[in-house]
Amino acid sequence: MSRQSVFAYELTWPVYDRLVRDGDTPMLIPVGAFEQHGHHLPMHVDVLLPSEFSRRIAEQVGALVAQPFAYGYKSHPKSGGGNHLPGTTSLDGATLVNALKDVIKEFVRHGVRKLAIMNGHYENSWFIVEGVDVALRELRWDGIEDVKIVVLSYWDFVTDATIEKLYPDGFTGWDLEHGGVLETSLMLTLYPDLVHMDRMVDHPPASFPPYDVYPVDPDWIPVSGTLSSPRNASKEKGDILLEVCTRGIVNALTAEFALDPGTSVSAA
Amino acid sequence: MSRQSVFAYELTWPVYDRLVRDGDTPMLIPVGAFEQHGHHLPMHVDVLLPSEFSRRIAEQVGALVAQPFAYGYKSHPKSGGGNHLPGTTSLDGATLVNALKDVIKEFVRHGVRKLAIMNGHYENSWFIVEGVDVALRELRWDGIEDVKIVVLSYWDFVTDATIEKLYPDGFTGWDLEHGGVLETSLMLTLYPDLVHMDRMVDHPPASFPPYDVYPVDPDWIPVSGTLSSPRNASKEKGDILLEVCTRGIVNALTAEFALDPGTSVSAA
Amino acid sequence: MSRQSVFAYELTWPVYDRLVRDGDTPMLIPVGAFEQHGHHLPMHVDVLLPSEFSRRIAEQVGALVAQPFAYGYKSHPKSGGGNHLPGTTSLDGATLVNALKDVIKEFVRHGVRKLAIMNGHYENSWFIVEGVDVALRELRWDGIEDVKIVVLSYWDFVTDATIEKLYPDGFTGWDLEHGGVLETSLMLTLYPDLVHMDRMVDHPPASFPPYDVYPVDPDWIPVSGTLSSPRNASKEKGDILLEVCTRGIVNALTAEFALDPGTSVSAA
Amino acid sequence: MSRQSVFAYELTWPVYDRLVRDGDTPMLIPVGAFEQHGHHLPMHVDVLLPSEFSRRIAEQVGALVAQPFAYGYKSHPKSGGGNHLPGTTSLDGATLVNALKDVIKEFVRHGVRKLAIMNGHYENSWFIVEGVDVALRELRWDGIEDVKIVVLSYWDFVTDATIEKLYPDGFTGWDLEHGGVLETSLMLTLYPDLVHMDRMVDHPPASFPPYDVYPVDPDWIPVSGTLSSPRNASKEKGDILLEVCTRGIVNALTAEFALDPGTSVSAA
Amino acid sequence: MSRQSVFAYELTWPVYDRLVRDGDTPMLIPVGAFEQHGHHLPMHVDVLLPSEFSRRIAEQVGALVAQPFAYGYKSHPKSGGGNHLPGTTSLDGATLVNALKDVIKEFVRHGVRKLAIMNGHYENSWFIVEGVDVALRELRWDGIEDVKIVVLSYWDFVTDATIEKLYPDGFTGWDLEHGGVLETSLMLTLYPDLVHMDRMVDHPPASFPPYDVYPVDPDWIPVSGTLSSPRNASKEKGDILLEVCTRGIVNALTAEFALDPGTSVSAA
Amino acid sequence: MSRQSVFAYELTWPVYDRLVRDGDTPMLIPVGAFEQHGHHLPMHVDVLLPSEFSRRIAEQVGALVAQPFAYGYKSHPKSGGGNHLPGTTSLDGATLVNALKDVIKEFVRHGVRKLAIMNGHYENSWFIVEGVDVALRELRWDGIEDVKIVVLSYWDFVTDATIEKLYPDGFTGWDLEHGGVLETSLMLTLYPDLVHMDRMVDHPPASFPPYDVYPVDPDWIPVSGTLSSPRNASKEKGDILLEVCTRGIVNALTAEFALDPGTSVSAA
Repeated sequence: MSRQSVFAYELTWPVYDRLVRDGDTPMLIPVGAFEQHGHHLPMHVDVLLPSEFSRRIAEQVGALVAQPFAYGYKSHPKSGGGNHLPGTTSLDGATLVNALKDVIKEFVRHGVRKLAIMNGHYENSWFIVEGVDVALRELRWDGIEDVKIVVLSYWDFVTDATIEKLYPDGFTGWDLEHGGVLETSLMLTLYPDLVHMDRMVDHPPASFPPYDVYPVDPDWIPVSGTLSSPRNASKEKGDILLEVCTRGIVNALTAEFALDPGTSVSAA
Repeated sequence: MSRQSVFAYELTWPVYDRLVRDGDTPMLIPVGAFEQHGHHLPMHVDVLLPSEFSRRIAEQVGALVAQPFAYGYKSHPKSGGGNHLPGTTSLDGATLVNALKDVIKEFVRHGVRKLAIMNGHYENSWFIVEGVDVALRELRWDGIEDVKIVVLSYWDFVTDATIEKLYPDGFTGWDLEHGGVLETSLMLTLYPDLVHMDRMVDHPPASFPPYDVYPVDPDWIPVSGTLSSPRNASKEKGDILLEVCTRGIVNALTAEFALDPGTSVSAA
Repeated sequence: MSRQSVFAYELTWPVYDRLVRDGDTPMLIPVGAFEQHGHHLPMHVDVLLPSEFSRRIAEQVGALVAQPFAYGYKSHPKSGGGNHLPGTTSLDGATLVNALKDVIKEFVRHGVRKLAIMNGHYENSWFIVEGVDVALRELRWDGIEDVKIVVLSYWDFVTDATIEKLYPDGFTGWDLEHGGVLETSLMLTLYPDLVHMDRMVDHPPASFPPYDVYPVDPDWIPVSGTLSSPRNASKEKGDILLEVCTRGIVNALTAEFALDPGTSVSAA
Repeated sequence: MSRQSVFAYELTWPVYDRLVRDGDTPMLIPVGAFEQHGHHLPMHVDVLLPSEFSRRIAEQVGALVAQPFAYGYKSHPKSGGGNHLPGTTSLDGATLVNALKDVIKEFVRHGVRKLAIMNGHYENSWFIVEGVDVALRELRWDGIEDVKIVVLSYWDFVTDATIEKLYPDGFTGWDLEHGGVLETSLMLTLYPDLVHMDRMVDHPPASFPPYDVYPVDPDWIPVSGTLSSPRNASKEKGDILLEVCTRGIVNALTAEFALDPGTSVSAA
Repeated sequence: MSRQSVFAYELTWPVYDRLVRDGDTPMLIPVGAFEQHGHHLPMHVDVLLPSEFSRRIAEQVGALVAQPFAYGYKSHPKSGGGNHLPGTTSLDGATLVNALKDVIKEFVRHGVRKLAIMNGHYENSWFIVEGVDVALRELRWDGIEDVKIVVLSYWDFVTDATIEKLYPDGFTGWDLEHGGVLETSLMLTLYPDLVHMDRMVDHPPASFPPYDVYPVDPDWIPVSGTLSSPRNASKEKGDILLEVCTRGIVNALTAEFALDPGTSVSAA
Repeated sequence: MSRQSVFAYELTWPVYDRLVRDGDTPMLIPVGAFEQHGHHLPMHVDVLLPSEFSRRIAEQVGALVAQPFAYGYKSHPKSGGGNHLPGTTSLDGATLVNALKDVIKEFVRHGVRKLAIMNGHYENSWFIVEGVDVALRELRWDGIEDVKIVVLSYWDFVTDATIEKLYPDGFTGWDLEHGGVLETSLMLTLYPDLVHMDRMVDHPPASFPPYDVYPVDPDWIPVSGTLSSPRNASKEKGDILLEVCTRGIVNALTAEFALDPGTSVSAA
């Protein structure tokens, strides 16, 4: 019998229903953004990366992957260059909270009891927390209290040892990795055709004061839109990042959801 | 010089900015749903079809295509089988309204002044109307009054002559075309690998009384989840539908946006 | 003993309480609009007609009638001429949804378990669907799951045979019946003093492209505000429409609510 | 030429448009409630009274009357017996605020610049204040700053001299006049057929501590649902109240809107 | 063992938990405003007074006091001079409703079952009613139905005898007591350093017509911002008011919460 | 002439109006939380610290201080122990966003053009960002575009050199400083009477996996409620922290608001 997709939406409903009805199959929901990523990367990096991580992880742990959220919370100057930039297309906080709440509740209605929110855009973090909280509250009002939701961002699974290896000259923090080595390397590994290293802008890491100012002062932001240089990105580094994050997340979900990592929904 | 994508999100921001800054390039926003479509179709039919229409049309009229809305308004018994069915994953009306409002306003902030909402899910229709209305109201509060938004559903461009050709035994209306000849034929033309004609359930068209009842009575709905049989679907019919709808929409957008249909953004 | 009103609000609370406390008496809620209807009709046609249908039906099936919703969702160009027209006075979608939700929940608190939403304004349709859905959700959170709500628009009960009789030259669809033969004939039967046939504007049916454009282009709309001519309206047609719709709705409610059509709340 | 209605909704749009387009004609919006009023009064007293006051006043000052708000804010124990009572059918505060905001903005869009909110239900008062405030704020965002809105409750126009005459044994305050002498007398004057003095319950005025308790303790409320006895109500008192309130409101609107009280829109 | 604070927020959580876990200890929540109070009083009078009343009452009845709400609903011309005045800093109605709802639900989560909302700003009254109502509704959805909430404003506990003593020349009503004898006297008793009697503006009581006009006409309001003169305020009157209100509220809470007034949480 | 308060709410409105009317005087708004802080600290630490920083800074830069927000966003397990803990009393995200929006807009209405949001609770951060963004959007709709808002958290001004001095054994990050050395030392310097070092619980720093799980697993959190031990806190460290943060913020505000640090509003 042939393999079937791990993408929930590519299934027919009877196949999907069989998989989720009893609550055992986890659902991974990628949450990304439509955000400028410099001169060398497309604007859906934050959708592509958590979606592809989700696909790989789902295959290993027997999970399904939901349609990604393609629009996220407003870009912040210190982690995405700011929401004033061309191309960046964002939601109000309340919109993201409500959309995530609605979708979580629907999957639970189908039977899903194990969900992972796979974040790919730093600025989404707290609106995901709130969306999860209000979803759980309304599910509780419906008498459903056996749902478990893991919330994660893939970069948090990069180990200190890997950081040292990838950033031999010192690591400036995940915030500044907007369009920098991390994202560019992963894109070189996973979507090389979408990376334009020839247009890449090399510049020192952005440097910010310990506070924010609104409306955003465009002069704070490198004109490229990236916050650190992608110059040192490489497919090799992307391979390492892909491996270490995938492994870390697989382990986390396996433990939290009491999964048997050898079983995949796509293997029939 | 090479062609570039019509997908706005696949561009880098400087390329995107050059295209939209002066307001000439239209933006097409596909709005779909995550909804069961019977035993033979995947659940993202309503995302795939308007997205692919958008891509083809964008290439002909020099437009860009935004990330699709992958989740839509609640499935209705008479046009989608009802929102109680497994797999169907929907948003509250207010969530869809606000998400569309946010995204429209962002594209306008970038410079876009010509937008087309490319609907692929019947139930979205009125929440799109409301989202467009509140977006235009808030844009007006920002002093922006030169935006033009076309709202359309691709099936409304099927001509009477085509309907007669495709439904020789009589046409039962667009509502019942949920998972029927229209959608299945188009999927056979565009995404044949995702169609499982061998699992297709043949049944007479659903028949409904002239009113609705809530909570939905599952007995009203064919157990397959489709509202009319896909048995007479074919790639040939899909080709015809694809051609007539694409042509109709191209003509509509060309007229409304005063476009020169020979120019494509993807030809550089 | 004398007859009493079928209008719930004309009763004293002890009489009302006795009727609804045990859930047997249905409540009919007319939902209309404040909308221009051409040069010959007043602006509350969409309130008057469903209210009068409700009154007649309530008397036959032993139901009560609630205060009508006098303001509805924004008029659409293709079914009401558009919300830019003078006189038309509309609610945001969310306002209508919440108002209907609140009112449904209150009647259920009193004991009502059978409700019918009697729509008189096409544009209300999907916001009624949403209002009903969120009302049922919150009632569920209160542990109440035995409510049944019928949603209907009276014109959907006009049979094909009646359409043929009333529109011998062909029927252009319910959408274009804004201020046309349907509404004008019914008003001539029920509220002749409010109809000014002498001011009526005769014009061909409006003709629209298969898409919408926002902001609305006033040139799309006949300057009269009607979408088809009321010239062929007559009291005779109104009598037929009144009879066929009333009968159809009585049958529908009798079946859905398991009513004994011979019993009226107003006969004591 | 014949008189025309003061009810805005009974007009055709061309007639209405001519009256309001230049901003001179005031619009009176009655805001009521669906609320139990004891054993002797129907539940729409708070709609009927401000609507009839509006009609009479409109005829004297050349104003128009909008469709009344038939549902109001939740009944309060000390002024309406409490929202736990059967029959009382209320809106959340936010719903009333938004409905009033929407409607005010629409009338202003038509050209109206002088509005009066004619309140008939004490509990509405502060949500009317908020609805007016947010309407004016959004109108300001649309660049409209020449709107004037009068907010009033008819009973506030009863003079001290009239109170002494009507309540020779002492006046217990407007709050307790729920279903008491004031409302019953006005109903006897205006809608005697809807008053059932034979079912009236005589009881001493309700007596409340100087605080509220929630959930409402039903024992605080007279079992009749009225807060003071209607026993001393009479048509004679109703005539006096009708006259003094009408005159007071006419004077107020004439002064605030710089009207010429001799001109009526209904006299052509 | 030493006394501990009655301010819940000054406790450590284990001490707090021990006090509230079983539901016996009442929680008093002061709700105030940031509002101009004339030339002689600071702008947080409506926070200081209910907070200090709460502290004194809590000590007598064994209650705790929550952080006060420092911002309230918009100042009204007839009770606070109007929200157009400098310094007055107010919330939208919905914001106050939701904030109060959230906080009440949290205290109930901790175990609190007896709450008193201690209002210090007249304009808050109806938004407190709504906040309490929606909090109780959502608590009900969580299956919690044993909560009792008292809502009060301290001035409602001033007896008629006290009014006669304090206002020998006649009492003009609590509304006009904005920055007048009541508030000024209490401030002289409790916070004399914050009262600037030398800057006090003496003027006759404000006189208003029996209706409101929006936007507010600044000419209606005394230029001082007070609505009646504080000239006759005195510490002696403040002492009396403090005593009579404290005693009245202690008695009310003791009765409603079945408390033993001799026991204080602060005595261990 | 005597000094006057830097607390805006302690001023009379004429004094306040004189200071803010022309936009030069900055307004500092402390935003805190009501949150358990272990066995040794009270629950309003996050209100006290930013309020006291604000007071000191205001005196140095000539600013005013607003009433603090005493309730904040829900406590997060990794930075506050989680919102399931007793005592923690939090707002929904939308409530905090709207409250901050309302208050910012009011201060701007008074004339304020320089605002600083002084955050004392890590979890508030992104809801402050959103509140500021929507406030600026609505101010823009009112035609006001010259507002500048600084957003800061005092701990971000602790220099690396200071961290090395204060944490000789290594710094575990600001997140774990919940009830640890930072907050406890500052409280020992500023509010020693509210610190109970004798009840302090010593434990190793909390250790979390690189993801979150909801509902929160209480076993992840040290039973004390603190995330790192306060054992090494001291008044000496508090003095250093107070000095370095105050100086850093004074410099930041002086630069951003183009202030003359020698001038204080409180010196007249």
